[in-house]
Amino acid sequence: MKLEILAVGTELLLGDIVNGNAAWLGQRLAAAGLDVHGSAVVGDNLGRIADAVRAALRRADALIVTGGLGPTQDDLTREALAAVAGVATARSLEIEGALRERYSALGRQVPEANFRQADLPVGAAALPNGRGTAPGLLLDMPMGARAVGGDTAPPGAPVTGVVYALPGVPHEMYEMFTVTVLPDLLARAGEPGAIVSRTLHVAGMWESAVAEALGGLVERLDVTGSATVAFLAGGGRVKVRITTKAASRTDALEHLAPIEAEVRTTLGEAVYGVDGDTLPGVVSRLLLARGATVAAAESLTGGLLGSLLSETPGSSDTFRGAVVAYATTLKTALLGVPVELLAERGPVDSDVAVAMAHGVRTRLGATYGVALTGVAGPDIQDGATPGTVYVGIAGPTGAAARQLQLPGRREQVRLLAAVSGLDALRRRLLREAPG
Amino acid sequence: MKLEILAVGTELLLGDIVNGNAAWLGQRLAAAGLDVHGSAVVGDNLGRIADAVRAALRRADALIVTGGLGPTQDDLTREALAAVAGVATARSLEIEGALRERYSALGRQVPEANFRQADLPVGAAALPNGRGTAPGLLLDMPMGARAVGGDTAPPGAPVTGVVYALPGVPHEMYEMFTVTVLPDLLARAGEPGAIVSRTLHVAGMWESAVAEALGGLVERLDVTGSATVAFLAGGGRVKVRITTKAASRTDALEHLAPIEAEVRTTLGEAVYGVDGDTLPGVVSRLLLARGATVAAAESLTGGLLGSLLSETPGSSDTFRGAVVAYATTLKTALLGVPVELLAERGPVDSDVAVAMAHGVRTRLGATYGVALTGVAGPDIQDGATPGTVYVGIAGPTGAAARQLQLPGRREQVRLLAAVSGLDALRRRLLREAPG
Repeated sequence: MKLEILAVGTELLLGDIVNGNAAWLGQRLAAAGLDVHGSAVVGDNLGRIADAVRAALRRADALIVTGGLGPTQDDLTREALAAVAGVATARSLEIEGALRERYSALGRQVPEANFRQADLPVGAAALPNGRGTAPGLLLDMPMGARAVGGDTAPPGAPVTGVVYALPGVPHEMYEMFTVTVLPDLLARAGEPGAIVSRTLHVAGMWESAVAEALGGLVERLDVTGSATVAFLAGGGRVKVRITTKAASRTDALEHLAPIEAEVRTTLGEAVYGVDGDTLPGVVSRLLLARGATVAAAESLTGGLLGSLLSETPGSSDTFRGAVVAYATTLKTALLGVPVELLAERGPVDSDVAVAMAHGVRTRLGATYGVALTGVAGPDIQDGATPGTVYVGIAGPTGAAARQLQLPGRREQVRLLAAVSGLDALRRRLLREAPG
Repeated sequence: MKLEILAVGTELLLGDIVNGNAAWLGQRLAAAGLDVHGSAVVGDNLGRIADAVRAALRRADALIVTGGLGPTQDDLTREALAAVAGVATARSLEIEGALRERYSALGRQVPEANFRQADLPVGAAALPNGRGTAPGLLLDMPMGARAVGGDTAPPGAPVTGVVYALPGVPHEMYEMFTVTVLPDLLARAGEPGAIVSRTLHVAGMWESAVAEALGGLVERLDVTGSATVAFLAGGGRVKVRITTKAASRTDALEHLAPIEAEVRTTLGEAVYGVDGDTLPGVVSRLLLARGATVAAAESLTGGLLGSLLSETPGSSDTFRGAVVAYATTLKTALLGVPVELLAERGPVDSDVAVAMAHGVRTRLGATYGVALTGVAGPDIQDGATPGTVYVGIAGPTGAAARQLQLPGRREQVRLLAAVSGLDALRRRLLREAPG
């Protein structure tokens, strides 16, 4: 089954928002073994929406449309789909009633314009919206035979395929897709042969090093063709996605297992998680397993490391707090870094990082202290170039620091520094096994 | 001139990355008064890329393609464009030489595969890449007449229009677009009539309140048709974009001025900036103008407020540092919040926010202290529901706190809380004028 996605909305073409809906749908469809062959964006224009739907249905068997279902004059997906199907729209009394009920429960009248949401292409099924007022639509084309009150013979060859129209509001779209659309798609696709994929998350290695380390494996797989390994880098982390295809899910999983094992053996402790794991979540789990806590001492990152350490729900069990000593004198006042050390070496220094980690560990009563000091840029500071960063870690078995040279501009250096701090703590925790 | 955008890359269809390039291009093109009529994504497949290019050129006069120019076997944009143009590819000795030079400067040999980047469709112009090895391409279709060694008669009607192929790596694409593509597009478009737009940034008001306040203005503009006001909300901020169209740029600016004035009068101090301004940048400027500094005391945000206060280059002049007292006992130890107050009221409390702001201001030696305490969720904590947040500000003229009820899940509550802290400081600074 060939699938396409069409997002409707001038705001997407203007770049006011990125098309996160298409990425979200792409992930979910790929995970379900369904292939997206193309994705497009079109503005709020009746003729162009209809043209884009027709073009997509000439190439694909199924089309998911997002957006254009709201109550305003700009919301034209209903009318465009009716035009493509060659049918009229008609008011659904059921949806009109549901709208009245929903508003009267809030003690309000339905604004007249909102009744447009009850005007459906004749013959289309309404998809329930658990989180908003606009129902989705399902059109099984061709629909001419079922048309009432519209052109029964659309111009040109009749288009064929199934169209799902979903709201553009992400949380409404997510639910409607999961509850209604995906099961329907899978039922239509029949047994698609099984594709399984697993993503391993890697930190502390650049993408090029990961690709080089796994080069031999990738080459061998290219020859056999039934499995792929792909890399995706971002935010100082690399995803390694292994995908296998076989007659059944069991076979595909069996095919995947030795490949995953080889990737894990090759990359070693750089692999921090799998599929839905996050680096902050993994660090929290490791701390929890050891009954340990952490505190952060930051400079160039301004609080980013602390915000990552507190990202995961329940992190109050493992995160004590942080001290951001952005001004150099505060490194002494708040963290006890010796004033002579700062005078002699400046704040961007390995021993300063160790002293900061030690200071925050002691003063905040944490099992581990993680410290970051360095230069975010854009200018050289205290004699060090942008990207020069020291990560210090202090714990029950001692303290140490490591120098990093991080690439990129200010914003990226700060993010990479915070991620490096998290990863340094993770590797330290792995060596200090629980109990 | 009708424009389309085509992004090449299976990773985009799989949702591994969102199509930020299309959004970036959409913004820049809209700002230049050029209309994007459609945008599409296609995977790394020679036939499908060629089909997508042909389809776009049937609808549009110009097409910008991003991605597929790298050195790997998956990078097929060069070959696809050659196929659409009906020409062969040929190795450019100039680009081959540049590749050798670039690598030899790094003391390395060019990997054999990378020479693919020197294979250009015959008749295409190479666009210089200031930040990477893959040159961009410019093809002026039809090109059959110029073809050497390829099919001179492509199948079907010849496609017409200009195609720019740019790298998918964002910073390479940004530069090539800005330096080469946009000037070329504007030259081809001729004087498009002048469109000017200005974006006003708003904080501390929800989108619905902004839309309601400006409803009368929007209605009057709808009638005249030569100006539009659009709203876009995100991250606790709202953008109000005013666009006017006229025969000349001077006329369009003159038309815009009174509309901007009316928006500013209506929204008052909620407007914090214009066009490229950021909330952290505006706060830094206000502090600098007053010779003042700030320190942050955080709880639920874990360091996010500090990271925003240190986001802008040069913020070491205005940002002293932050204390993240995530564990309740640290609010006393690090910030001096009275232990009796915490025992009586719990940490999510107005007076606790005031005491935190006061404590961080004093201990970090800052002119202003900003404090955030509250519940990020997902669970109720200390009797308060997720989204309950207190913002405290302490300064030379006294201290106060305000309660907020923020919507959304954990991640959004934390971001909105940090933004609210910044905005509360901004409003306080506006009332305490410099000198």
